[in-house]
Amino acid sequence: MAIRAAVAGASGYAGGELLRLLLAHPEVEIGTLTGNSNAGQPLAGLQPHLLPLAGRVLEPTTAEALAGHDVVFLALPHGQSAAVAEQLGDQVLVVDCGADFRLEDAADWEKFYGSPHAGTWPYGLPELPGARAALEGGKRIAVPGCYPTAVSLALFPAYAAGLLEPEAVIVAASGTSGAGKAPKPHLLGSEVMGSMSPYGVGGGHRHTPEMIQNLSAAAGERVSVSFTPTLAPMPRGILATCSAKARPGVTGESLRAAYDKALRDEPFVTLLPEGQWPSTAAVYGSNAALLQVAHDEAAGRALVISAIDNLTKGTAGGAVQSMNIALGLPEELGLSTIGVAP
Amino acid sequence: MAIRAAVAGASGYAGGELLRLLLAHPEVEIGTLTGNSNAGQPLAGLQPHLLPLAGRVLEPTTAEALAGHDVVFLALPHGQSAAVAEQLGDQVLVVDCGADFRLEDAADWEKFYGSPHAGTWPYGLPELPGARAALEGGKRIAVPGCYPTAVSLALFPAYAAGLLEPEAVIVAASGTSGAGKAPKPHLLGSEVMGSMSPYGVGGGHRHTPEMIQNLSAAAGERVSVSFTPTLAPMPRGILATCSAKARPGVTGESLRAAYDKALRDEPFVTLLPEGQWPSTAAVYGSNAALLQVAHDEAAGRALVISAIDNLTKGTAGGAVQSMNIALGLPEELGLSTIGVAP
Amino acid sequence: MAIRAAVAGASGYAGGELLRLLLAHPEVEIGTLTGNSNAGQPLAGLQPHLLPLAGRVLEPTTAEALAGHDVVFLALPHGQSAAVAEQLGDQVLVVDCGADFRLEDAADWEKFYGSPHAGTWPYGLPELPGARAALEGGKRIAVPGCYPTAVSLALFPAYAAGLLEPEAVIVAASGTSGAGKAPKPHLLGSEVMGSMSPYGVGGGHRHTPEMIQNLSAAAGERVSVSFTPTLAPMPRGILATCSAKARPGVTGESLRAAYDKALRDEPFVTLLPEGQWPSTAAVYGSNAALLQVAHDEAAGRALVISAIDNLTKGTAGGAVQSMNIALGLPEELGLSTIGVAP
Amino acid sequence: MAIRAAVAGASGYAGGELLRLLLAHPEVEIGTLTGNSNAGQPLAGLQPHLLPLAGRVLEPTTAEALAGHDVVFLALPHGQSAAVAEQLGDQVLVVDCGADFRLEDAADWEKFYGSPHAGTWPYGLPELPGARAALEGGKRIAVPGCYPTAVSLALFPAYAAGLLEPEAVIVAASGTSGAGKAPKPHLLGSEVMGSMSPYGVGGGHRHTPEMIQNLSAAAGERVSVSFTPTLAPMPRGILATCSAKARPGVTGESLRAAYDKALRDEPFVTLLPEGQWPSTAAVYGSNAALLQVAHDEAAGRALVISAIDNLTKGTAGGAVQSMNIALGLPEELGLSTIGVAP
Repeated sequence: MAIRAAVAGASGYAGGELLRLLLAHPEVEIGTLTGNSNAGQPLAGLQPHLLPLAGRVLEPTTAEALAGHDVVFLALPHGQSAAVAEQLGDQVLVVDCGADFRLEDAADWEKFYGSPHAGTWPYGLPELPGARAALEGGKRIAVPGCYPTAVSLALFPAYAAGLLEPEAVIVAASGTSGAGKAPKPHLLGSEVMGSMSPYGVGGGHRHTPEMIQNLSAAAGERVSVSFTPTLAPMPRGILATCSAKARPGVTGESLRAAYDKALRDEPFVTLLPEGQWPSTAAVYGSNAALLQVAHDEAAGRALVISAIDNLTKGTAGGAVQSMNIALGLPEELGLSTIGVAP
Repeated sequence: MAIRAAVAGASGYAGGELLRLLLAHPEVEIGTLTGNSNAGQPLAGLQPHLLPLAGRVLEPTTAEALAGHDVVFLALPHGQSAAVAEQLGDQVLVVDCGADFRLEDAADWEKFYGSPHAGTWPYGLPELPGARAALEGGKRIAVPGCYPTAVSLALFPAYAAGLLEPEAVIVAASGTSGAGKAPKPHLLGSEVMGSMSPYGVGGGHRHTPEMIQNLSAAAGERVSVSFTPTLAPMPRGILATCSAKARPGVTGESLRAAYDKALRDEPFVTLLPEGQWPSTAAVYGSNAALLQVAHDEAAGRALVISAIDNLTKGTAGGAVQSMNIALGLPEELGLSTIGVAP
Repeated sequence: MAIRAAVAGASGYAGGELLRLLLAHPEVEIGTLTGNSNAGQPLAGLQPHLLPLAGRVLEPTTAEALAGHDVVFLALPHGQSAAVAEQLGDQVLVVDCGADFRLEDAADWEKFYGSPHAGTWPYGLPELPGARAALEGGKRIAVPGCYPTAVSLALFPAYAAGLLEPEAVIVAASGTSGAGKAPKPHLLGSEVMGSMSPYGVGGGHRHTPEMIQNLSAAAGERVSVSFTPTLAPMPRGILATCSAKARPGVTGESLRAAYDKALRDEPFVTLLPEGQWPSTAAVYGSNAALLQVAHDEAAGRALVISAIDNLTKGTAGGAVQSMNIALGLPEELGLSTIGVAP
Repeated sequence: MAIRAAVAGASGYAGGELLRLLLAHPEVEIGTLTGNSNAGQPLAGLQPHLLPLAGRVLEPTTAEALAGHDVVFLALPHGQSAAVAEQLGDQVLVVDCGADFRLEDAADWEKFYGSPHAGTWPYGLPELPGARAALEGGKRIAVPGCYPTAVSLALFPAYAAGLLEPEAVIVAASGTSGAGKAPKPHLLGSEVMGSMSPYGVGGGHRHTPEMIQNLSAAAGERVSVSFTPTLAPMPRGILATCSAKARPGVTGESLRAAYDKALRDEPFVTLLPEGQWPSTAAVYGSNAALLQVAHDEAAGRALVISAIDNLTKGTAGGAVQSMNIALGLPEELGLSTIGVAP
């Protein structure tokens, strides 16, 4: 008996990636697809890479359209999920790819998003300590942001092992799909090809409190985060360069051992062999996160680099992985660690 | 009982794509992998996107290493397949991704490749008239070149229907993976990013006689081909712009009807809805070929545009599709028409 | 005594390129800059690469703002130039980068642009036979479209020498800046990177009648043109692949000789040495057009490839070159044939 | 009377950019060009964007070939400059784009380059305190590395003003031309397009001691540097994200004021208006460095972002700027702050 899944926001990049993965999921049957400005249009022109769904027509995003499914994925602009979720009832599994239910601290939410806090749902980053238990059998999942996914996977093992000082410095490069499909001048191909540029510098990016929340939980103390996102000339991928001062006595070996231990049984997070570095190309379209660590003795810092596909592990893949856990399915079902390269 | 498949030339782009697809094939078990200069190395560093095979070590390309498999894929430099194939025996299915056995005319082979002709094998473009029958139950497959795949799929329906004059003009843009993984100055990222450039202009490209062979067979008369390949700043994909003078009486409707009819039951070749044009992005990593047609009344020409992924439908996907037919498996097994986009 | 130049439409790509070139022109002083939706804004954020003009503020595009200059460049959306030009008086040199005054045939204009024909101005492609004489001392210049520049330069020598049949087939790849700066979904970086796609297939592109006009004039007979433009994943550049049936007796040598003769004294159009092919990278930011020719004996066709920068020789550079001629300055003043590569 | 300049290593990326700039320099006449493996070849095929030099033929790199010039630019692989420079005599101005003479500390040189230290020449980053005086009238210039240029310009004003703790964390993205023109598999277009990847992580990059040298000099105390370079999918450009803990009392205003003061009279380094961030696109082909600063109060860090063109301000432009100073010419002669965009 198939799991019937609806996707709200099926014309965007997150929605398209959800559909790409759900089409490959052996237990899922794709039900209603909704859009807002694109309601009434066939998917053919909106997601031309999803040939098997070319004939599907988007419905408006309403509770009626989304009723009658086992799972509803929300890929809506931030702040729009709460109202929809409320009408869906508590028997349906709701997986929110937006930010609405990620933050525990209402003050953080209000400071960074400027609207009342809607609440906190189980957090869909299964690799974090305790996360799987919180997801199992539940009916609500808050899918993490793409940057917090890359950064939390990179640093939680070291913080959980007590190896780092609680001040992380992170610079991450993201492909342009992270900025969404709404056309804006600075996202034009003419502007982004051949160009690297930063944004949200100085602590202003909305994903910062989410990183602090995750790393602080792993560390058992408040971790400060200096986060600088940059826009890179590629459609997909995040490369996160994460560092913090190493605590006294930490060595390259102890660092590596902590990651070995923490990640040994993780199906989607891989510490690469020594000498090999992550690249976003290697995770293109895959649910894998690739990590490598180094200890810079001269600077006294631990460096951790992670690479993910922002749309897969960073959004839709993480969502499906968490759905699998919530529904009691094998966690890896329908997901792959194989990238499309070159 | 799984089909055991070996891949000779597993460190290159064609080899890597074969492995990506074979990993997803439900009936195939991946056996020996071989390389030449890379023999003895683990696949981890050579194909970092193929995590499940990271620990596999390449063996030298010898008949012994390749023995004991049901299928052997050859992804070797042109001219090297014949010697290997000869030693493999006639009970094993040999799928050659090289050019060695594609051409029927020995004179063409010698003119364009400069070595003695090795023979002609059943041609692995199942959509061509009569091709499936020639592949079924056979033990040898010559996988077409990437450009001939894009061009033959684009034009065979119109030539088979007698709609075009026998003089085709083709300009195609290819991603750089079509030029292989051997490092050459003009293929450096610094050179190709931001640049379009032609090569093999004026009839010199080795894929030209293969196109002529396919189109002439469809037309039932000798078709001349003016073919200009260009290198585009993208890793994958071919966009082929194909045209010929329309025969008297041809209209946009009759053209479209011929394609509708010829492609109606094809699982991997799609005539797009009117108003929608193929893009290489939509077939990234997929085995689909997307087509659109137009009749330019003022110029008296029929235009057909096709988009494929040169490594998937243009090489490894076509190889697996043909293998499925040869082995009596469902033709679509392990293959997808879903691209990775954006 | 400097020439005072105003630029209407200074926030767009054509306007930005005009300013880049005018800043380097030793006889020009940059006067008023205008915009529409961007009026009132400083240029710093709109054209961040033009540091010397960062503090300039855009004025609304009105005849008053544009008065008092020796030259007014119009880089406005098609159809808006005529109204502005009319108010500028006939003593000022008006250089229109839009399409309004390019076509001689009113019926062509109305068919392709859907509005009444405004007239025909001297055509700013100095290399065409007779073009320089028409520009000298004049007060109005219609700058050619970017595609017609690439294509006309490629084919006029052969047509003028009577070497080709009057049916040209052209496929051209353009960088995304050719589509302008107005944000549209299909022009997003996420969409264009990694993708080639066609548009305006089958004779519908507005630059087609302009090509026919130029080639027919060179040939002395009506030349039909099959033109297919494609969008390439690069910010700038046009690579045009142009071919036609060679007339009886034409050889590779006679073809090359015709180009040698026609281009010998041209400062901006270069027939490359045999064996070297044009690339858009080599003309990035330069006013050069690079050409190479081939004779495909088997197909009976002459092939000519040209590469230009669509914003420089294809728009702003051609405009400045024509301005130089009109004003009696040395034609090459302020212009360069040096590209920025890699 | 023109300054005669020779370029050793004229076929590489640094050599090509030197020639591009020298062609535009009003006082320079380009003399001998040399290469190693390319000696005997015309420049046409090696640097196809430098049309005015197409006919020049490379000579072997010998002291004889380089004799008789006023200036000799060395764009040779690291470690090869010393032997050539020695033979050129002390009356000729030698500008070394390699690393050989950049480091003051012989131990640093030996640790990072593994060969005996050749000496230390005046350092060609004129914006650093005291640098101009050291260059004026001199006969030897060590052109800085591209990363040290971007990083030193970003941080020296804050360190000189005593605003930062002496532990800098730097992550920089570089275009692929920084890795040179020698073909290597990981630099293929197929590999780099769509991909971000790090290298030299953990303190191993050779530019690290050069950054420490510059920042320590500005700070008047030893500054430690954690430096992570990443390869970005673009031909040119460096975006450096630099941060350090702010000293007590530092505010966004005091930070900005320090940069305003330090850079006020610099012709090539610009602190952007508040709200505008540097991008590599804006400095494509220009000698400008763009900076922006932010104070992250929550993390207690000062952030400085800089963007340069690695080949222009980061190599050849810096070399020409320093040459101008050494020769007593106006510092800006032949150089531009105008980028080629989009």
